[in-house]
Amino acid sequence: MARRLIPTLNRVLVEKIIPPSKTTAGILLPEASTKLNSGKVISVGPGLRSSEGNTIPPAVKEGDTVLLPGYGGTQVKLGEKEYVLYRDEDILGTLHD
Amino acid sequence: MARRLIPTLNRVLVEKIIPPSKTTAGILLPEASTKLNSGKVISVGPGLRSSEGNTIPPAVKEGDTVLLPGYGGTQVKLGEKEYVLYRDEDILGTLHD
Amino acid sequence: MARRLIPTLNRVLVEKIIPPSKTTAGILLPEASTKLNSGKVISVGPGLRSSEGNTIPPAVKEGDTVLLPGYGGTQVKLGEKEYVLYRDEDILGTLHD
Amino acid sequence: MARRLIPTLNRVLVEKIIPPSKTTAGILLPEASTKLNSGKVISVGPGLRSSEGNTIPPAVKEGDTVLLPGYGGTQVKLGEKEYVLYRDEDILGTLHD
Amino acid sequence: MARRLIPTLNRVLVEKIIPPSKTTAGILLPEASTKLNSGKVISVGPGLRSSEGNTIPPAVKEGDTVLLPGYGGTQVKLGEKEYVLYRDEDILGTLHD
Amino acid sequence: MARRLIPTLNRVLVEKIIPPSKTTAGILLPEASTKLNSGKVISVGPGLRSSEGNTIPPAVKEGDTVLLPGYGGTQVKLGEKEYVLYRDEDILGTLHD
Amino acid sequence: MARRLIPTLNRVLVEKIIPPSKTTAGILLPEASTKLNSGKVISVGPGLRSSEGNTIPPAVKEGDTVLLPGYGGTQVKLGEKEYVLYRDEDILGTLHD
Repeated sequence: MARRLIPTLNRVLVEKIIPPSKTTAGILLPEASTKLNSGKVISVGPGLRSSEGNTIPPAVKEGDTVLLPGYGGTQVKLGEKEYVLYRDEDILGTLHD
Repeated sequence: MARRLIPTLNRVLVEKIIPPSKTTAGILLPEASTKLNSGKVISVGPGLRSSEGNTIPPAVKEGDTVLLPGYGGTQVKLGEKEYVLYRDEDILGTLHD
Repeated sequence: MARRLIPTLNRVLVEKIIPPSKTTAGILLPEASTKLNSGKVISVGPGLRSSEGNTIPPAVKEGDTVLLPGYGGTQVKLGEKEYVLYRDEDILGTLHD
Repeated sequence: MARRLIPTLNRVLVEKIIPPSKTTAGILLPEASTKLNSGKVISVGPGLRSSEGNTIPPAVKEGDTVLLPGYGGTQVKLGEKEYVLYRDEDILGTLHD
Repeated sequence: MARRLIPTLNRVLVEKIIPPSKTTAGILLPEASTKLNSGKVISVGPGLRSSEGNTIPPAVKEGDTVLLPGYGGTQVKLGEKEYVLYRDEDILGTLHD
Repeated sequence: MARRLIPTLNRVLVEKIIPPSKTTAGILLPEASTKLNSGKVISVGPGLRSSEGNTIPPAVKEGDTVLLPGYGGTQVKLGEKEYVLYRDEDILGTLHD
Repeated sequence: MARRLIPTLNRVLVEKIIPPSKTTAGILLPEASTKLNSGKVISVGPGLRSSEGNTIPPAVKEGDTVLLPGYGGTQVKLGEKEYVLYRDEDILGTLHD
């Protein structure tokens, strides 16, 4: 029922990660370990087009875990799920374990 | 009686999709499934011209179902129908089933 | 007695079309069919010059019927007639029957 | 006694045309035929220099009768005469009989 | 437990240096020698991408001790540690003993 | 005792010409012939550098008599004399007898 | 004890020259000969990087005596000494005896 969105240009569709406030064993986690503003990249646009006719590939790719800015982004609801669209240059970095 | 509009540059003529608030069987749909701001692309301009003499093709094409921004656009009435003109960079993405 | 104006750069001289509020048979037309903001292109400039030495041809040409923005433009009176000057990028599109 | 001014870059020195409010036969002219804001081009700069090392020639030339914007320009007095300096891109067009 | 952040584009992840207010021997240091706003570069993005398809390498590299501006930067907490993200052009210089 | 200033980039050092309010014979001049805002170019910078590695030569040269804008410029005192620094694009033109 | 700062990009580290208000023989100098806002260039960055991959060399070099703008600059304290960081385009010119 949910439709798939392919962003235009350098837009990036992100599903925000809501960190668990307890461990799987039920222990409450201190606030410090839960407050990183991160998300999963669901889909990315083809990139911006330069005036020379080039396409500039986005700085992140589908599947990346990304650090998000504290502001901005456009809320999008597809089916029952909430996503946020960002311009790729607003994404702060990729997170790795 | 309705005249056809060919947008200039990177403008895109969109017919907004007004989502049904009931199914065809008459069942009222919950608000969540009806509020996506989308439209159908009716016609697109040839694209912006760069200073090097290139034409940069628009990011969407005729027939695309597109996700629209919550703001902006220019209302246009052709015959009895209402359309909205956007710059292609303001369109957020294309929707696919 | 009216002088001819050749616009500079990407300027476009437009004569606004004042839609008839009655048919030729004298029947009053409903407001909906009369309110499109359109005009006829009387003359166009040679186009903007890029820093590479190219001239970028205007997006519309003499004789085009164009959809005009709701704002802007510079009023010009040549002889007894009123015209409006626009930058070609402000013209929304061309209209075709 | 009046000194000659050669404008820099894309500047254009214009002498405004003050339209006669009577014909030479002394008949008062209606306001409509007198209010066009026009001038004669006295001298033009060599043009703007692009970062590639090109000079972009001005859009008007010495001797042109030009349509002037309603705003802007820099008043210059050379000897007993008043002139106005414009950037060439602010001049609206050239007038021809 | 702390995740590693690879900044996007020309962003630089910095760990601020909090200067000791005493020497290791316990002598209080005068304020003058403690107030330089500096940090250690932890990771850097690949650089900005130009419209010609080039990547412009960042002005600083991992391990550099850098002089930071008095304003700006985005606070990031990874695990128990606080970092700050800057655009490389906002970093004032590198410090050498 | 006065030091020589070589301006950077496209800056131009100008000594303003204070027009005599009397002729050498002591006759008071009418205001009209004294109010042109002009100066003598004392030294010019090498010009702006473009991103392609070119230097764009300034629009005026040492020794030129120039028409100055009514606003802007930076006052500089070298020894006992007052000068004004302008960006070359702010100078309106060169004056010739 | 003082650390050396190598500025990034087109930044320039300047030590301001505080003019003596007396001659070495103890004679008070009139204000006019003391008020030039100048400094000595201590170190310069490698220059700005253009999108074409070029580095644009700074307009001043180490050791230059420079005329400083009346505004701006970033105060930096290295060891016991105060310096000011400027972008090279903000430096007005070089001073020569």
